[in-house]
Parts: sequence; C-alpha cells; structure tokens
Amino acid sequence: MSKVRDINLAPEGELKMEWAKRHMPVLNLIREEFKVEKPFKGITIGMALHLEAKTGILAETLMEGGAKIAITGCNPLSTQDDVAAACVKKGMNVYAWRGETNEEYYENLNKVLDYNPDIIIDDGADLIFLLHTQRRELLDNIMGGCEETTTGVIRLKAMAEEGSLKFPVINVNDAHTKYLFDNRYGTGQSAIDGILRTTNLLIAGKNVVVAGYGWCGRGVAMRASGMGASVIVTEVNPIRALEAKMDGFRVMKMEDAAKIGDIFITTTGCKDVINAGHMLIMKDGAILANAGHFDNEINKEDLLSISKDYKVVRFNIEEYDLGNKKLYLLGEGRLVNLACGDGHPCEVMDMSFANQALSAKYIRDNHENLENRVYSIPYEQDLRIASLKLKSMGVEIDELTLEQRKYLSDWREGT
Amino acid sequence: MSKVRDINLAPEGELKMEWAKRHMPVLNLIREEFKVEKPFKGITIGMALHLEAKTGILAETLMEGGAKIAITGCNPLSTQDDVAAACVKKGMNVYAWRGETNEEYYENLNKVLDYNPDIIIDDGADLIFLLHTQRRELLDNIMGGCEETTTGVIRLKAMAEEGSLKFPVINVNDAHTKYLFDNRYGTGQSAIDGILRTTNLLIAGKNVVVAGYGWCGRGVAMRASGMGASVIVTEVNPIRALEAKMDGFRVMKMEDAAKIGDIFITTTGCKDVINAGHMLIMKDGAILANAGHFDNEINKEDLLSISKDYKVVRFNIEEYDLGNKKLYLLGEGRLVNLACGDGHPCEVMDMSFANQALSAKYIRDNHENLENRVYSIPYEQDLRIASLKLKSMGVEIDELTLEQRKYLSDWREGT
Amino acid sequence: MSKVRDINLAPEGELKMEWAKRHMPVLNLIREEFKVEKPFKGITIGMALHLEAKTGILAETLMEGGAKIAITGCNPLSTQDDVAAACVKKGMNVYAWRGETNEEYYENLNKVLDYNPDIIIDDGADLIFLLHTQRRELLDNIMGGCEETTTGVIRLKAMAEEGSLKFPVINVNDAHTKYLFDNRYGTGQSAIDGILRTTNLLIAGKNVVVAGYGWCGRGVAMRASGMGASVIVTEVNPIRALEAKMDGFRVMKMEDAAKIGDIFITTTGCKDVINAGHMLIMKDGAILANAGHFDNEINKEDLLSISKDYKVVRFNIEEYDLGNKKLYLLGEGRLVNLACGDGHPCEVMDMSFANQALSAKYIRDNHENLENRVYSIPYEQDLRIASLKLKSMGVEIDELTLEQRKYLSDWREGT
Amino acid sequence: MSKVRDINLAPEGELKMEWAKRHMPVLNLIREEFKVEKPFKGITIGMALHLEAKTGILAETLMEGGAKIAITGCNPLSTQDDVAAACVKKGMNVYAWRGETNEEYYENLNKVLDYNPDIIIDDGADLIFLLHTQRRELLDNIMGGCEETTTGVIRLKAMAEEGSLKFPVINVNDAHTKYLFDNRYGTGQSAIDGILRTTNLLIAGKNVVVAGYGWCGRGVAMRASGMGASVIVTEVNPIRALEAKMDGFRVMKMEDAAKIGDIFITTTGCKDVINAGHMLIMKDGAILANAGHFDNEINKEDLLSISKDYKVVRFNIEEYDLGNKKLYLLGEGRLVNLACGDGHPCEVMDMSFANQALSAKYIRDNHENLENRVYSIPYEQDLRIASLKLKSMGVEIDELTLEQRKYLSDWREGT
Repeated sequence: MSKVRDINLAPEGELKMEWAKRHMPVLNLIREEFKVEKPFKGITIGMALHLEAKTGILAETLMEGGAKIAITGCNPLSTQDDVAAACVKKGMNVYAWRGETNEEYYENLNKVLDYNPDIIIDDGADLIFLLHTQRRELLDNIMGGCEETTTGVIRLKAMAEEGSLKFPVINVNDAHTKYLFDNRYGTGQSAIDGILRTTNLLIAGKNVVVAGYGWCGRGVAMRASGMGASVIVTEVNPIRALEAKMDGFRVMKMEDAAKIGDIFITTTGCKDVINAGHMLIMKDGAILANAGHFDNEINKEDLLSISKDYKVVRFNIEEYDLGNKKLYLLGEGRLVNLACGDGHPCEVMDMSFANQALSAKYIRDNHENLENRVYSIPYEQDLRIASLKLKSMGVEIDELTLEQRKYLSDWREGT
Repeated sequence: MSKVRDINLAPEGELKMEWAKRHMPVLNLIREEFKVEKPFKGITIGMALHLEAKTGILAETLMEGGAKIAITGCNPLSTQDDVAAACVKKGMNVYAWRGETNEEYYENLNKVLDYNPDIIIDDGADLIFLLHTQRRELLDNIMGGCEETTTGVIRLKAMAEEGSLKFPVINVNDAHTKYLFDNRYGTGQSAIDGILRTTNLLIAGKNVVVAGYGWCGRGVAMRASGMGASVIVTEVNPIRALEAKMDGFRVMKMEDAAKIGDIFITTTGCKDVINAGHMLIMKDGAILANAGHFDNEINKEDLLSISKDYKVVRFNIEEYDLGNKKLYLLGEGRLVNLACGDGHPCEVMDMSFANQALSAKYIRDNHENLENRVYSIPYEQDLRIASLKLKSMGVEIDELTLEQRKYLSDWREGT
Repeated sequence: MSKVRDINLAPEGELKMEWAKRHMPVLNLIREEFKVEKPFKGITIGMALHLEAKTGILAETLMEGGAKIAITGCNPLSTQDDVAAACVKKGMNVYAWRGETNEEYYENLNKVLDYNPDIIIDDGADLIFLLHTQRRELLDNIMGGCEETTTGVIRLKAMAEEGSLKFPVINVNDAHTKYLFDNRYGTGQSAIDGILRTTNLLIAGKNVVVAGYGWCGRGVAMRASGMGASVIVTEVNPIRALEAKMDGFRVMKMEDAAKIGDIFITTTGCKDVINAGHMLIMKDGAILANAGHFDNEINKEDLLSISKDYKVVRFNIEEYDLGNKKLYLLGEGRLVNLACGDGHPCEVMDMSFANQALSAKYIRDNHENLENRVYSIPYEQDLRIASLKLKSMGVEIDELTLEQRKYLSDWREGT
Repeated sequence: MSKVRDINLAPEGELKMEWAKRHMPVLNLIREEFKVEKPFKGITIGMALHLEAKTGILAETLMEGGAKIAITGCNPLSTQDDVAAACVKKGMNVYAWRGETNEEYYENLNKVLDYNPDIIIDDGADLIFLLHTQRRELLDNIMGGCEETTTGVIRLKAMAEEGSLKFPVINVNDAHTKYLFDNRYGTGQSAIDGILRTTNLLIAGKNVVVAGYGWCGRGVAMRASGMGASVIVTEVNPIRALEAKMDGFRVMKMEDAAKIGDIFITTTGCKDVINAGHMLIMKDGAILANAGHFDNEINKEDLLSISKDYKVVRFNIEEYDLGNKKLYLLGEGRLVNLACGDGHPCEVMDMSFANQALSAKYIRDNHENLENRVYSIPYEQDLRIASLKLKSMGVEIDELTLEQRKYLSDWREGT
C-alpha cells in the first residue's frame, strides 16, 4: 500500500456527510427500508432545517425513499455552505447559505414553498407559519408537517388551540428518543463545543450561568459542570428551580447572576432573558451565548443601544464596548452550537431524524385520517428507535418475564 | 451558663421528631393553617406509613388539624420503636413495631381499620387493598384516600381500570414535588446512607449494580457514582436504558451484571429482579440491597434455597453461605433506607408530606364531588409547595414579565 | 437447612471485627506471613489508635506475629466499647472507652506506657509526646515508632528539627498507599457517612463549606459534591485554593463562607479555623462538624462563650442557642467520621494498616541502624501494597516492556 | 453608533493573539515589569514551542523585556500559520509552519540556533538536544534553558544524571502552577475540545480509554467523564491504577480495553502504548487520539502496516482500512489538542508562561551561579503566580493568624 494522501478526495461537504452517515445507524436502517418501499414516490417534501451534514443525510434518506426535496435553512447562521453544495450535487433543490440577511432568509423559505410541497419538515415553525399567512394558496396541497423543536411546538399548539392550524403536524420534538437525547445530551455537548472552539477559554473555575432548566438547560448545566464550571441556574418555574438546586447548582435571579457570571448561556425558548438591565451590571469580559432557537433570548438591540462601539474580535466573537467594560457576544446570539460549531453530535441526530423520517412516512400513510392538530409520536415508534439505537451500540437489556408482566398488572399482590 | 448536659432530655423518639420538625418548614406552615382552620374536626384518619420521625410529624400535623389518628407501619422492618412510643404519648392510636411478623403486620392494619376511618393515607396500598377485600363493610364511611408511592399507584390504577376501586384516591406519588425529589434525591441519598452505616465498606471503586432506572434508580445511580462507584444499570425499558448509558453508566443484562457486581441495589417495583440464576454466578462477598417498596425484588426464597447455611454476621447483615461463596443480604431485603437507616432526609419528606396533608384536606373538602378513581394533584398545589420550599431555603427566582408571557403564547413571532 | 436466626451469635464487637477482617485482604496476607515468621516474638507494642474494628484487626495481626499488645484510643470519643471488649477477650491489654474525660485519656496513655513498650504505634503523636516529656525514663527501651496521621507527622518533624526526637519514627501517613486513599477516599466517605447517620438531613442543594483543601479536604469536597451539595472551599494556600476553584468549587474567605454555609466541615490540621467571629454571622440552623485530628479546629470555647444555652437534641448533636439563632455541633467537634460513625471504610484501612504492620516489622528489623528522625516508607513497600490491593480487587494492569523501559530512560529519542 | 462590521479588522493571527492576551492577566503583569526593567536587553532567546496565540504572547512579553526572539515550533502539526505571520509582523524571527516534514522541522530548529541564543525556551527538549549533539559549538554562549513539558524534563534529567547536560535548565513543568493546571485542566479540556470539533461525535455513553493516569491522564479522564463517557484507564503504576479505580473509573490492561473502547486517548509520555496487537482486536470505527508530547504513543507504523488502505475522510481524520474494520486516527497521532484545536485554554497558559517568563529572567540574573543541572522553580514563585491568578479571578482567601502559624510549628500542643 502506498501512502499517498488526499488524492481525489471528495469536497469537504460530501466528506462531512459521509462521516455523519457512518454514525447514524438507525436512520441508515430506515433508509434501507425506504430504498425498497419508495414511500415518497411522487411526493415533494419542503424542508427548513439547520442545513449541515446530519440534515443532509435526512434529506438524502427521504430522497432515497422517492421524494423530491426542496430545502432551506431554519436560521440565518446555521447553514454550512459546503454541505449545501453537496446537497445540490446530490440532486436536491437547495436555497440556503451561511449569513443570510433576514430578507434572504424569508425569500428562501418562499422558494421552498414554490415547489408546492406535499409534506413539510420544519424546525421552529417559520415555514408552517409562512404557509398559514402569506402562502395560504398552497395549504390545500399539504398532507401534513413535522416539527423538530420545542419552540416550534409551542407555536403550533397555540395555532391549533385557536383553530388556525390547517393541516396535521407531528410533534417530533416530544418523542422521548428526541427530547431526552437531542435537547439534553445534544445541546449539552454541542453548546460547550461551540464555546470552546470559538473562545479557547477555560471553563473550569468559571461561573457559568445557564438560563432555563428545561431539557436543553439541564444538558448544558450538566456538561458545563462536567468541564469544571461552577454553574448557576436561573428559572421561572419553581419546581425546575428546586431540581436545579438539588442537582448541586446555585439558583438565583438573573439580576443576581448577572453580577457574577463569566459565561451566560440562554436555553429558555423565551425572549429578553438577558436585557440591558442585566448587561449593565455584568463583569468586564463577560461572554454571552444563546442555545435557544431564536436569537432574541439575549436582547441584541439592548446590547447595541448601551454600547459605544462594537467590532468582531475573533471569528464568531463580537466585542461590545460599554465604555467602562466590554461584553462579548458569540455567533451573533444565534444558536451557539450551530453558528459556532457543527451542531449536535451525529449519534444524537440519528435518533431525532429517525423520528422525522418515520413521521414523514406516517403522514404519507395516514394523512387522510388525521385532523388538523398536533399529534404525538406513538410510544411504539419511540421504543423501536431506542431499541435499534441500543443494538447499534452493542447494548443488550433485560426483558420482563411473563410472570413479571403479570405481577406488574395485578393489584392483589402486596406485603 | 453552666455546662450541664443531658439533663431532663426528652426520650429519643421525641428528640428525633423535634429534630425532623425543625427541618420540615413547608409542612410547618401547613400545620399553622390547620391549627386555625381545624379542617379535620370530627374526622378519623387511618394511616399506614413507614413509622419514623417524619411520618410522626405528618400525623401530628393532621392531629393539630383536628383529626383522630390511627396509625400503623407499611413495612415490617421500617418502624422505629422510639418514634412509635413518642406518637403514643402525643395521643395517637399506634399499632406498629420493628420486626413484626407478616401476621402481626396484617393484624395491625386491621386494628387501624377498626377505627372506622374517614380518610386513608396509605403507602403501598396494603391498607386500601384490605378495605376492598376483607373489610368491605367499612368502605361506605371512606371519603377517600391518598397514596404515597409508585408501587401503590400502580396497584390502584389497576383497580380503578377494573372498576374495583370504591372511593377516590389522590395520587400523591406523582406530584412533581414528590416523585422528582423524594424518589430521586431522597432514595438516592438514603439508600447510600443505609448501606454505609450498615457495612462500613468503601463505595469508591466498587461495581454498584442498580436495577431499574426510574426516578428511584437514577437517584441511587447518581449518588453511588458521586461516592466513587462504577455504576452498572439494568433496565427493561430501552429508552431508560439509553438514558442510563448516556448518563455515563454501563448498561447490561442482569445476568451479565451479576458476574461483576460488588453491590446490588434494586429499585424496580417488580419482583424477582435478582433470582437464583443471578445469585449463582455472583462473586464471593457480593452485597444485596433493595430500595423498592416490597421485599420481593431480590428473591429471598431463591437465596435461601441455594444456601447451605445462613446467619446474621452484623446488625442488618445476613450471610448466605452457598458453599463455594458467601452472599450478604442487607435489612432482610426490605427497603434498605428504612430498614437500615432513618429513611429519606427530613427536607425531602417535608415536600412529600406537605402534599399528603394538603391532599387529605382536599378529600375532606371535595369528596362529595369526586369519582372513584385515581386523581392527580393539581399543578398549582405543586407550584405552591415548590415555591414555599424555595423560600424556606432562601432562594429567589425570576418571574416572567407580561411581555414574556404574551410572547410565549403567541405563535406569530418568529425568526 | 432450617432458618433459625441469631443463635449463639458472637457479641457485636467480635462480629464487627470479623466483618472488618473479611474486607482487609492485604493485611490478612501480612498476617499469614507474621503467623509463620513471628517477627514480634518477645516484643511489646504500645498503641494509641482510634479503637474500632479495623484497629482491632491490626492489633490482632501484630499479636499473631508474636507481639504483646497494650492499646488505648487516640481520641476520647472514637473508641467503640464493644470492640474494646472483644480485644480484651482476644488477650490484649486494653485501656480505652468511649467518652473518656481528658484526665482519663492521659491516664490510659500512661497505662499503655507502663508496659514498657519496644515499639510505639501512634496516631496524632500524643503517646510519643508523653514519652518525650513525662515518661522519658522509658525512652531507652524504645526501638522506634510509627505515626499514622498528618497532624502527628507535623509535630514529629518539628521535634526532629529541634533535635528533640529520641527514637526513629516511620512516617506511615506519607505512604502513597496511605494518604492518597485513607485521607482522601477514606475521610471523604466516612465524614459524609457520619453526618448522614447523625442528622438525617439532605446534602443535595446545601452549601457545604469545607475548610482546607489538603487530601482530606478534597476527599470531603468530592463526596459532598457527589451527594449534590454546592461546595465552598476555604484555604490559606493559594495553589490549593486555585485547584479547588478549577475543580468547580467556590473559594472564599471563611468570613464570607460563614454567612451562607449550611454545613461546615473542617479538615485543616490547624486550630481556630471556625471561631466566634464566624459563628456570629452564620445562618440559623448551621451545622458544624470537624474531620481533622484534634477538636480545636472549631473553637468550642468560643461557641460556648457566645451561647445563652446549650443541650443535646439528638444523639451526637448539640444545640447551641445564641439567642437570635441556633447552631448545631456534631460529635462534640471531634472527628465526625469516628465520633459519629464507624470511621474509614475497611478496604481503605486495609492499606493504611498494612503499612503500619510492615513498618513495625521494619523497625524491629532495622532499629539498630536508624537515626532519631522521621523516615519515609520505601516506595517499593508502597508499590507492593498497591499491587496486592489491586489483585484482591481482581484488577490487572499493564507492565512496561523492556523496550519501553529503555525508551523512558533514554534522552536521545525525540520528534 | 453605526453598526458597520469587520472594517479594517486585523488579520486573524493578530486577532487571536489579542484575544489570548486579554485572558493572560498574570503574564501581562510581568510584561509591565519587563517593559520598565528591560531584563533581556542584549539577550537572544531561542524558542521552540507550539507556535499558537498564547506562545506568541509569551514571545512578545520577552521581546518587550528587551530580548531578540528566534522562534520555531516544537511539533510539525501544532503551528498556526496566521499566528506565525503575526509574530513575524511583530518583529520576531520565525521559522515554523503547520505541516512541516521531519526534515523541515529540524532545519527550523537549526535556524533558530543560528541566532546563537543566550537563553533557550524548549518544549520536549529537541532544541536542547540538538545543541548537545550537532550544534555543540554554540553551547558556550548559552546561559541556560527552560523546559516546558514532562517529556522534556524526563530527557533532561537523564542527561544531567549522565553528566551530559552542559548548561543549567529550569524545570518549568514541575512548578505547581504549571503541572497541576496546564497538564490537568489544560490537557483535560483541550483534548476533549480537539476531539469534539474534529469528529462531531457524541462523548456521552462512549467507552473512552485513557492511557496513563498522570496529571494529563487524570485531566482527560475527568473531563471525558464530565461529558458523559464511561472512562477506562490503563496504567503501569499500581498506585496510580488504584487511584483511577477509586475515582470511579474502570482499570484494565490495554489488551482488554482495546476490545471495548470507542475512543482511545494516550497521555503516557511512553511509546508503543497502542500497538498492532491492540489495533487488531479493536472494534470497527474505533477512534485513536494522542495527547502526549510525541506521536509515538500510538504506533503509526504498526497501524499502517496492518492496513490495506488509508485516506483522509474529514479534516484531521485519517481512516485506516484493515479489511474487516476501519480505525480512525486524529491529527496524525500528534497532540490532539494542538493538531486538532487551539491548544490549552488561555487562562491556563497564562500561568505556565508566567513561569517561563520569570524563569528566563531567573537564568538571566543567576546563570553565573548555577550548575549544569535541572533546577526546580522556587516555591515562592509558585505561590506568587497562584496569588496573582486568584486576584485576577476576584478570589480572596484566608491568611493564617500569627497564633495559627505558631500552632502549626509547635509540637507540644495535643489532645
């Protein structure tokens, strides 16, 4: 064997996708089924997801199942251009690039809708919202949609409650094999990863303030603590606050945390979690990062308005000069794991996107019997994905015996 | 001040109760309300709970609210005799002692029922089950019941599903301020405590096998790991198994764990989790403990049947001699935190029993409008208890602004 | 096999010793050698150690090696009376009981010295100090001594530096297989154990203040954190303080920690670490525990002088009433792991006492060639004990190949 | 303020250095002193260090102190070209680029020596070794050297023992404020960072095998565990192995770990830690990374010789195809934190390089009185750096009172 390197290598985007695919065994099993069954023959799927390698593999999986794909990003800063290029080469219709303006972002959403899709796969619900406002003429053709994230689900449930939702949507986010893993272990690792590679700063010994102790927040808190931080949690829900406290973290109001935090990470799904009032009392050099879906958790208008000057001091780091001190914003306040990194680990997205792929098929198969509301994923699908994942990891678990099953359903056995 | 000690000290049981009371601030607030309102005037409450100091404080709280109390244990090995004596002195009707035989255990349940109670507070549902089988004549008088633990809730739901349940029951276990704290941080700490004080053995470096990764199991796994153990989890649910794996623990079948475990702790709510097949392949010196409600998780009949001899080698440690090796069973396979220790920490039971006290009052106030089924605790009660607890700990948290509330319910805001 | 329990059981002290022995495999191997070699034939060993089960096994081991044993405790509150009784029955000369007054403590040290010992095994150096002050007539007969703990070693090195030390002493404390394990994992676990069994309070969510970040302190901090505490460390050494900080703990002055701590644990080897100034600013209900050798780390005179009243409120808990608040002192401020528990885990003492036994033999064999100074344990003994311990745990490790050994000593290999 | 971005931005290398400088407060204080004192006026310093941003700041600090700088890398893959360019612009003589061949690497070392340096700052001792072999004519001019890393110190001590060392060398590695922080928290975080950003794989749930449990190894094990890995440690020293075990990790031979590991990280300072025998039994897809100084811990010749094919599959990931499985090598087996990342966090290098700067000054001031051996850093320098660091972090610690100092040195106080 001669050691000649890097010859005829595929472009970086394809390499990234190939690497991701290698680490998405559950989705690959579904792909094999789709290849044979072609469930999406004649179907156009309109997608708005963070367009990086794992998403490319999901889209490719659906394409292998017969679908025509029109895809854009769901965030102006999370698209990886090399992956977008690879997707084009694979035959998808791609409308996305890193650093889109807000106008471009919406133009791209519209271009995807121009394909008159049958099924929507959304992340944050911007595509579905657009359909329900400016592109209502396309609603008739829609079989249904799938929503990826907490923020989108909250919006869709509000729509459904009002009676505004015009097609069925599968709530992929609330699959156990999605939120327990993607939101927690996924966000936990990838937010830390994004911060590390962007700042080269030490986490150990720092006061890391995590806003929100939902699944994302507890993932981030757990991993920041695992890197040696002294973690402070802010919450509005007293039960979650109490959990954070008993998990060993300090819990306080943001106005108190603001004074002592070294790094702030927002994971709330709410806006204005860090505002001018907090920024004005922060320490010189404090670092602000957001791991929630929208870039409004850290109020950027506030930050700009109290600053005398601002500039980019390193890739993905903006320095805001408040006169008496400087604050640093990572990735323009957009999802730090995607804007400043490669997003969630492949193995986690394997499960999230297995849920997406099976949900899209479920819509294909059942859309005629579904109402215009938000549906949960069947627990059996969850169990199946978890079982396949364990198998791919070489983990074997116990099974209940018949006698144990009987015992668990019989109330007559006691002390 | 002269330093004269131990003069006129109250008996140990009263001291334990006084100490516990000091650390149950939420229940104490409810007690102050009960003292004024006397919600249980004319009411008899029949209780079957682990009769130790914190339970004594719950019973006393109900008594201060006007109730007549008849109380017994819910496990033959969890009663603390000094506390039982203190309860008698305080005017309760007590039928319990440590080391009851099974016959005595049931006699005592019956003696409590002889008081013809209006409200039942149960832990494991033995009292409620007895009412529905041998003491059906008393059913008419019952306003309703409260159930404390997962095992009991499973039994009661099975009864309700069959239509066999004859009065409403409040599912105290599933209050967030109960199961997230009591089952997790409570069982986690107290199971380790029970093992430490009984064995004086080092946890660090040991393979600790935790059977079950429900709330109790994850509490025990977290704390065993916190003491330096290398934790192995067994599960039958693939989603939980995957969580355990991603929490950093090894996950395998019990038949594989059996070969390498040093200490086994069962927390499943199921029977025969550790049986003769497992015991026969265990290492010499392995230690077996149960933290589940009933003493059938470790099959003691199996253990006895494969042993050549057995004896007590230290308080609460039985040695089973299998010929080629010895296995050690703690606290006769009964709840290790109660049989071998003082049960959950006071601050945790503060919340669990605040839920019990408020639930008993809820039954008193609403029993006429309730159906014969298992009711959840209202989320508002949960939030109130969590808020009171945080306040007692001196923790302040954020509140949503009006604008944030509006944002969270408005689906129109997006990227 | 009939299931008849508790028949003809040995008394509790013997049971404890038997249980401990089972978990001290390295010391048991040395015992087998001693039984054959009888290295201490004709030798009297005077011992002052915490007289509980593991110490009993060390003494028995030396006795099996031919020694005559005279033994007392090294702390008024750490003797376990049932173990002392068992040691008497085994033929040792025992002078110790739990709750000795200071006078009785010194009388007992003197009684041990009355045996005119050849070798001294000390813990804290009180016995050696007594020999060098009031019992100098016995110095001539002494071959040498072994010292168990940091505090004693500090005193002995000060003596040696002055030229006051009159016989060689082996510094057992500084054996790697002693201080890295006993001081860290031993104190870490047993201090938490002592607090848990005494208070039945929740560690999770509490501010636990650990004074000192030496080996004991980091053990306690690690385990308190493992139980869910938010740990605060106080230190006087900036390097250790920085380590504590980067291990994720808060680091501050005691005067700042005093205001927010829920539980205080001192592990410094220094006196007056917590004094009246700190106590006066503590929160109501704060708990004070000491895990250092002497009971002067928490200034008890200060505590008494600022209190209006004090009483025992539960076994091993004293309440000091300062008028506006109450503070709680555990185990009279004596070593919380021994005064309030069973001391270090058996497996840890196995290594510490293997070092003691081999060091006593080393003195026997080499005393004529030793100078009157403090000696370290040979690294080979350390490696041997560690290897035996690993073997007893079933752990196998790599060995360097010849080529690797050569590489590690050759400076010529580079990039 | 107008929001115009990225205008007139400095090149990336300068930005990186500016960012690093901002987070190196201790070195900045020393720089201020050097600016005034000009201790290196007329002195040439020859440096071979990982040439990235923090190193640039060290060199700049020395330059501000009057030194002429000639600098190269100490590893073919750790130089960051943009930083090298920035250093040139600042007036240093720079001979380094990422991806040097071995020949180029040595040419560059020689070019630095061509400047006839007075003081050497080395990392791994390649520069010092070259001086002692092929460039002995320059030895006379050398005042002394400073060595940064464990591997270099081992080599230099071997030289000194042989009498081959021809000038004094300060052992910077063994400063407490270096190895306790740089080797542990620095390597721990940066090795994980390098793996995360290169692979985008999930750490949680993976078997991460850490070879070596020295300061680097325990840092990596601690942080891998903190990211959710199940950590396995291999060691040759039984004491360290026992520590790893009691820290909760699995400990086994590499031949056993090889079969189950998902990610391997070597931190031993020894060669051939992972060889063909291990690789042949590894799982398909296993990932190999090295965090030790030289790229011989993972035997790359072995890996190549057992492979049928190999290629780069993603930046810094080489796939070795063994026919029946594939193995993945990160960063060509060179220091994963530097080859695949930005090296240690700035705050950690702040202390390491403060030690370097002060040590270079120490040589300047004392070289005439130093012998040709390896010197430790004075403990006072260590304490000063730690104190400055704490101050920069806003941490205040206790000071011993006079009475406490007296107590600690007085052996007469006892029980």
